[in-house]
Amino acid sequence: MRVGVLGPRGTYAELAARSQFGDKVEVVPYPIITSVAEAVARGDVQVGVIPIESLREGSVGEALDALAWTDVKVQAEIVVPISHSLLGVPGAKLGEITQVLSHPQALAQSREFLRKNLPKAELIEMTSTAKAAEQVGKLKQPHMAAIGPKALADLYELKVLGEDIQSGEFNITRFLCLAKEDSKPTSRDKTSIVFYTARDRPGTLHEILGEFTVRGINLTKIESRPSKKALGDYLFFIDFEGHREDPKVNEALEVVKLKTAMLKVLGSYPKRF
Amino acid sequence: MRVGVLGPRGTYAELAARSQFGDKVEVVPYPIITSVAEAVARGDVQVGVIPIESLREGSVGEALDALAWTDVKVQAEIVVPISHSLLGVPGAKLGEITQVLSHPQALAQSREFLRKNLPKAELIEMTSTAKAAEQVGKLKQPHMAAIGPKALADLYELKVLGEDIQSGEFNITRFLCLAKEDSKPTSRDKTSIVFYTARDRPGTLHEILGEFTVRGINLTKIESRPSKKALGDYLFFIDFEGHREDPKVNEALEVVKLKTAMLKVLGSYPKRF
Repeated sequence: MRVGVLGPRGTYAELAARSQFGDKVEVVPYPIITSVAEAVARGDVQVGVIPIESLREGSVGEALDALAWTDVKVQAEIVVPISHSLLGVPGAKLGEITQVLSHPQALAQSREFLRKNLPKAELIEMTSTAKAAEQVGKLKQPHMAAIGPKALADLYELKVLGEDIQSGEFNITRFLCLAKEDSKPTSRDKTSIVFYTARDRPGTLHEILGEFTVRGINLTKIESRPSKKALGDYLFFIDFEGHREDPKVNEALEVVKLKTAMLKVLGSYPKRF
Repeated sequence: MRVGVLGPRGTYAELAARSQFGDKVEVVPYPIITSVAEAVARGDVQVGVIPIESLREGSVGEALDALAWTDVKVQAEIVVPISHSLLGVPGAKLGEITQVLSHPQALAQSREFLRKNLPKAELIEMTSTAKAAEQVGKLKQPHMAAIGPKALADLYELKVLGEDIQSGEFNITRFLCLAKEDSKPTSRDKTSIVFYTARDRPGTLHEILGEFTVRGINLTKIESRPSKKALGDYLFFIDFEGHREDPKVNEALEVVKLKTAMLKVLGSYPKRF
């Protein structure tokens, strides 16, 4: 099985894919989220794994666009807790590190560890945690270290100098698995939809949410996003509990379809978050 | 007047601040959004300018958190269209550029220009457009160029080799000005609020939106965000048309306050988007 992920190799998206599909699948990295979704739509990969939101960064706009405009379904969600390690070359010692490379987010998330253990180290910003580890692995300098997921150690022959070094604050990233089909009903599902309403009509959104409320369907996420067609035109992305085949969900979706200019059911899948 | 911005110098946040407050204000860069908001709360700067959402990236989670948890008001919104230039050292020629440095987003947004004009150039990812321009200005190599806002040319003594090189797709970033007070009513205002409801009560959000609907108040943005306290706890961020001193808006806010566990009126300000 081939699984497309947002690259490069060794970042949290690959970790998410491995946690869902195991170590035996072939992981194919793509440079941007849109190309992961397109690869699924074309059938180049059976599944694609993309980040959809993180507690720190919020929703990923490019991922929302890809869901709205690519012919793919959401088959699963995966929640990955962010856990950073400090990685150096074999033989490196924590006390002798003078340069720390990572993505700005990861450096910020590890600032308490750095302040306490490496207060004088120079912090060098890279575009991803994987690029940072790759660089440290390539230059083989014992005074350099990278911050990123522990799995990068194997990929670039590095040694773990510190584990779980991120600050106390709880942080997770939520990924979606895209495929040609969504999932069969289980005992605890979620459904994602996107719709579009006529502009400047106060109350349409309220009316639509009412269709879920009267049926006792619990919303777990709601987000508006400019449609890019004109200022003031919005797409609404909603996640709610239940499977699209549940009679009450199915009924709500039928009614919402009549009340919107466009409704796309992105898929139903087991609830993890 | 001192204006805090998300740094480094010369990025789109500074452009937004200059477009709102002119060239005479003192711009103070801060490394993260939270520190801009805190500087406003402490009174170190009179105003802070932070990115809140972009068409491509979506909402900025850190900015939403800063609004919810820092003692500041939204005084204005600023909308900046994204316009990239290709910047080289004085004497550089477009045809002789072999390395292009920029933020991955800016490189992606300029790919059509690069494919057409510099198909063989090596693309080097940097953590910001400003860092890319700084690097080109420092190394003074005629084969190197940076992509970023045109204003970076002055800051780093660079020359514009190409203007408006981003692909056709419409793209903007929306910034907010934070201050101790929000704005007085004008003829066309918007108000931003954040609230928190009791968990797992289907219909609370619907009920709250109803308070705006029945009064003919038009929503322009809605977004849920995990509260970070527990899985499934959400904050809701809503923007709507009207000033908090308008009688019907004021009335809606009074009712919403009674129906929520926490309501913070982030501020009223002239509508630009």
